[in-house]
Amino acid sequence: MPLNDTRFLRACRSQPVDSTPVWFMRQAGRYMAEYRAVRARHSILEICKAPELAAQVTIEAAERLGVDAAIIFADLLLPVEPMGMGLRFQQGEGPVLEGPIREMADVERLRTGAEVAAKLGYVSDAVRLVVRHFGERLPVIGFSGAPFTLASYMIEGGGSRNFVATKTLIYRAPEAWTKLMRKICDVLEPYLLAQVEAGAAAIQLFDSWVGCLGAGDYVDYVLPHSERLVHAVQQRGVPVIHFATDSATLLPAMHRAGAMVMGVDWRIRLDDAWARLEHRPAIQGNLDPVALFAPPAELRRRIHAVMRQAGGRAGHIFNLGHGILPNTPVENVIAAVEMVREYSTRGS
Amino acid sequence: MPLNDTRFLRACRSQPVDSTPVWFMRQAGRYMAEYRAVRARHSILEICKAPELAAQVTIEAAERLGVDAAIIFADLLLPVEPMGMGLRFQQGEGPVLEGPIREMADVERLRTGAEVAAKLGYVSDAVRLVVRHFGERLPVIGFSGAPFTLASYMIEGGGSRNFVATKTLIYRAPEAWTKLMRKICDVLEPYLLAQVEAGAAAIQLFDSWVGCLGAGDYVDYVLPHSERLVHAVQQRGVPVIHFATDSATLLPAMHRAGAMVMGVDWRIRLDDAWARLEHRPAIQGNLDPVALFAPPAELRRRIHAVMRQAGGRAGHIFNLGHGILPNTPVENVIAAVEMVREYSTRGS
Repeated sequence: MPLNDTRFLRACRSQPVDSTPVWFMRQAGRYMAEYRAVRARHSILEICKAPELAAQVTIEAAERLGVDAAIIFADLLLPVEPMGMGLRFQQGEGPVLEGPIREMADVERLRTGAEVAAKLGYVSDAVRLVVRHFGERLPVIGFSGAPFTLASYMIEGGGSRNFVATKTLIYRAPEAWTKLMRKICDVLEPYLLAQVEAGAAAIQLFDSWVGCLGAGDYVDYVLPHSERLVHAVQQRGVPVIHFATDSATLLPAMHRAGAMVMGVDWRIRLDDAWARLEHRPAIQGNLDPVALFAPPAELRRRIHAVMRQAGGRAGHIFNLGHGILPNTPVENVIAAVEMVREYSTRGS
Repeated sequence: MPLNDTRFLRACRSQPVDSTPVWFMRQAGRYMAEYRAVRARHSILEICKAPELAAQVTIEAAERLGVDAAIIFADLLLPVEPMGMGLRFQQGEGPVLEGPIREMADVERLRTGAEVAAKLGYVSDAVRLVVRHFGERLPVIGFSGAPFTLASYMIEGGGSRNFVATKTLIYRAPEAWTKLMRKICDVLEPYLLAQVEAGAAAIQLFDSWVGCLGAGDYVDYVLPHSERLVHAVQQRGVPVIHFATDSATLLPAMHRAGAMVMGVDWRIRLDDAWARLEHRPAIQGNLDPVALFAPPAELRRRIHAVMRQAGGRAGHIFNLGHGILPNTPVENVIAAVEMVREYSTRGS
């Protein structure tokens, strides 16, 4: 079967499918013994930078779970290194970015453009290996962080609870903000297109932290930049899945960026989210990742609720409302795939 | 002027006012030098448990800022101690609750009822001192955490990112969950009524973490308990302000608990939130707390945006969308009060 006729890619284009496609954000991750075995010998950055390792954990997860798409294993912070910021992962503390961006002079020091993106070639090399492995059998999803999320990491110097430095930069130096977002996009655009060249059949844009903004600020300070990336990718005939958490109030504004698929978290009902989007894009989501810790009957009840809200309408991709959490029982993830298929077939 | 005719209490009842009332969540806090001076000599728990100190920081903040209401200084975790859990605040790590609740046996061990609430008498003593200070001049707001937020702290043993233990308890042992919520309410109800007895003119119920739930789970596992508390307080003629962050999708369900005032965070436009509530309750909010770090012109622009969304409709209480953050410049908080008054008067 041609790749374009797989369930996942048909659903991305809102075409009818035999069974709702299913995959999971962060499906290759710490919850899985195969991944932990690789992690025991390599750091996250080592895995990302060794295409054979990144391909291996990507493939193992997709094969083990029996999902309808494989998402390339990579870290959303990879672009900051060739842009000129030191990056390390501290045990239990998350990522640390050295020399956070606080003013125009900091933004000006950042490197950008195609030659910077070229230094991330290990990601497209990994995509190529995974595409070679799966052939026409399974579509491969490329990805990157969205510009806001990358910018917030670069400004905060790591994770943040309140995004005070990020918002303060927007308030005090909007031209520095705009320049930062442009420089990030000047890297992300060729980076994503290289993944497309390597065979990625779809691209997911993860705006993990943009939910800290109100919709007005989203439109003013984020939308034009995300839109540029969505447009660049979709112009190549490759659908974009545009995902954020905590985005219930941002969905209509985010949709203006034009992605063919909108990913939604569990805080909003899937039917409500889709209605707010006037059912124009396909929709991906949105089981609470914690539901995968529930006993089977309760997990099934919650999966059926999502499926019922999708209502059999063409263009639903089953996923979580955020990434798989550490310590999630892998057997529950496999069971979830079966429950989605079972519901799709029986329709009840 | 009788207390009942103050701007704040009129707005709680959705009656017209001469100028939009304004106060700030966590208005007595680390950002303020007066508070830091007290904190230099006393722990948070010491301040809470010494009515003179709690009253002092409450009064100093309200006087300094010139706001329209004083909220009693207290910690939302105070009830867990007399219920039988050890509580301490670790430098930089937030609260730690000893012996987290994970099963029915843990729930059964918890103490509850009026005699437990009586051990929190230092809070109503502090309310009494503040009420005596302000007399008819300024209404005093009592408060407690809402049952979900307290339960989640008790189950997680502290703060949490994903609330895995809390949700897993709901999935695996719903009867233990219900019993826990009832025991919490059996303490919170007399605790809040004691604050009312002491002269609190309104009660704010803070459901800080309930935004981690979808609306379906809110209705099934939270609503009946919050409703019970709202009802108990409002039966005494005292309005309840029902506040949560990240609650855009929960607002209609939360409103079913019946509070006269709904507090909303900045992720949803105030006009959108109020419309979703069909303008039935009064509304409190919703400036992004980070806006208080902005230069004056930008702060004014953002305050005016909130005021414009309120549209001069009776029943708006100006506040932030969450508590004042550490390091907020106190002069900006004072300026914000003036900007609200200025807009109310000029109407532009």
